[in-house]
Amino acid sequence: MTDPLPSGATVGILGGGQLGRMLAMASARLGYRTHIFEPGAAPAADVAHEWTQAAYDDDGALARFAAACDVITYEFENIPAPALDILSAETPLFPSRRALEVSQDRLTEKTFLSGLNLKVAPFAAVETAADLPAALAQTGVPAILKTRRFGYDGKGQARIKAEDEAAAALATLKGAPTIAEGFVDFSMEISVIAARGQDGAVAAYDPGQNLHRDGILATTTVPAPIPASLRTDAVLLASRILTDLNYVGVMGVELFVTAAGLVVNEIAPRVHNSGHWTQAGCAVDQFEQHMRAVTGWPLGDGARHANVTMENLIGGEVARAPNLAAEPGVQVHLYGKAETRPGRKMGHVNRITGPSG
Amino acid sequence: MTDPLPSGATVGILGGGQLGRMLAMASARLGYRTHIFEPGAAPAADVAHEWTQAAYDDDGALARFAAACDVITYEFENIPAPALDILSAETPLFPSRRALEVSQDRLTEKTFLSGLNLKVAPFAAVETAADLPAALAQTGVPAILKTRRFGYDGKGQARIKAEDEAAAALATLKGAPTIAEGFVDFSMEISVIAARGQDGAVAAYDPGQNLHRDGILATTTVPAPIPASLRTDAVLLASRILTDLNYVGVMGVELFVTAAGLVVNEIAPRVHNSGHWTQAGCAVDQFEQHMRAVTGWPLGDGARHANVTMENLIGGEVARAPNLAAEPGVQVHLYGKAETRPGRKMGHVNRITGPSG
Repeated sequence: MTDPLPSGATVGILGGGQLGRMLAMASARLGYRTHIFEPGAAPAADVAHEWTQAAYDDDGALARFAAACDVITYEFENIPAPALDILSAETPLFPSRRALEVSQDRLTEKTFLSGLNLKVAPFAAVETAADLPAALAQTGVPAILKTRRFGYDGKGQARIKAEDEAAAALATLKGAPTIAEGFVDFSMEISVIAARGQDGAVAAYDPGQNLHRDGILATTTVPAPIPASLRTDAVLLASRILTDLNYVGVMGVELFVTAAGLVVNEIAPRVHNSGHWTQAGCAVDQFEQHMRAVTGWPLGDGARHANVTMENLIGGEVARAPNLAAEPGVQVHLYGKAETRPGRKMGHVNRITGPSG
Repeated sequence: MTDPLPSGATVGILGGGQLGRMLAMASARLGYRTHIFEPGAAPAADVAHEWTQAAYDDDGALARFAAACDVITYEFENIPAPALDILSAETPLFPSRRALEVSQDRLTEKTFLSGLNLKVAPFAAVETAADLPAALAQTGVPAILKTRRFGYDGKGQARIKAEDEAAAALATLKGAPTIAEGFVDFSMEISVIAARGQDGAVAAYDPGQNLHRDGILATTTVPAPIPASLRTDAVLLASRILTDLNYVGVMGVELFVTAAGLVVNEIAPRVHNSGHWTQAGCAVDQFEQHMRAVTGWPLGDGARHANVTMENLIGGEVARAPNLAAEPGVQVHLYGKAETRPGRKMGHVNRITGPSG
């Protein structure tokens, strides 16, 4: 085993939202200082040693930030490539550039996953309206158009219920490069949170079942009600992705459960909302696991000792937190965001529903 | 239920060590900002929004700190009374002054506990060597002399193995007001971590068994191997102390298990090293529990869902952390202290040893 970064070293985190905030606390638990890079509001900075408030095209600020950090990681995948060039010039950055490049673009990602012989929804690139007929022949109808880049929580998407709606749907995406995806007939969505260390070891948590509301994750429940064989499939599949990418860190892999097995919906090269349950259910949660990986510690084994349901508090739902906190086995996580807005993730609770089983 | 402090409010913490650090992270989890007051080095400041580095006799700094906080709490009990006067003039301070006054002075504490009809070791005040014969008649020999104030981790103590050593033992304590305590014939030391909310509700965690090395806590194991009736006694006894003090927050109560039942060793009006296991074993750990209490949230119920052994990493033992982290079910907590010194608490690990049972 190589030695981890020494205590007191500085971990840089790109992004100052709730994931950065929980990563910063995990970094502190391993004895590190955290330095946040975030142009906008940064709840993560409240628990960090330092905060560089600068834009991703401020080359000087990026270089100074990188020089101040012993390792850099991130809470979101849409980091501009020129910024990455500066950041990773002298300072190790995990997960790797390749993981970012693959997951920043839905077309690249689907092509990569298909190349690993993993099942994905039928897909086709759409540049202009002229591409639509061939694309829909590939995907079938109904289909969904998604911008190749910068989509999250259902944003940058347009549904096509019938072929003659396609051009209008494409127009709502305002000329952004787009991918058409066919629908997958699935019984449930699950996700598996997996990690790979600098030594190549892989660990995965039990898959959880995800329920969405208005395109935003509402709850994740572990264990997902699936047969043991599918749990194993999910974990092996995640392991294949991590290993092929020579990945270091935690990844979220969203999967559809279908009659024909698991179909990969998308991957996120970072800690993932559907892994928040690990804070209550595991000795080593996904945030500590990610920090262990990027700073060279051995990974935790991912063992789960409790059944948990994670519930997001979206927008005004955050007002329910004190009542939820009064219920048995409920752990509260609020993100310290100054303003409550509809659709905004304000916090979550983890409810322990029993011993692991 | 009264409403808790609103998200974004500021919690002041007196003391910037590892307890303050873990309290600061719990404060952040509830959506608050943390402001640390600490004259010396402050690992807690690495995870806090602000740090006032000033002395406890800097009245201006104390007043400015108090004005910037919506509520104030503390990680250690030896806060000078004049500082408390300034801090609590305009800002609520929990746990209360009375809890501090009782626990700052071993003589006051023992007198208080006896007044509740709780068993304590035989004790007597010792001001000068002239008091020794009467005191030792009260306590028996062997006995132990302890400074009434400012002792921790075995510091400020001198053993008396025979009566003719008493004067020399007293001299090593350099004239500090002292208490003589008799020895208690105990089979084990346990502690119970209990909390009381602003609404008067009390919750307690299962007692853990404590093992010391060189006067410093080495491990805490839950559950403590004691009969259910003693667990109940421990919890009820803690509840009596909290309620009598009109206490708000978490308290650590150290107890000796004897043939005649439980004897109270000491109380600490704060989160306690022997409660660190709750980070791995409970949905709501002692740090969140304390912050819930002082900010007006409902308490968690204290339920435990795993068996845990907490092991302190003292001085150079911190170098073992990466190897320990590689073992199953081990959660790491390092304190980010710049300098490793013998006897210094550098971190701890929580090891989940099985489901609760």
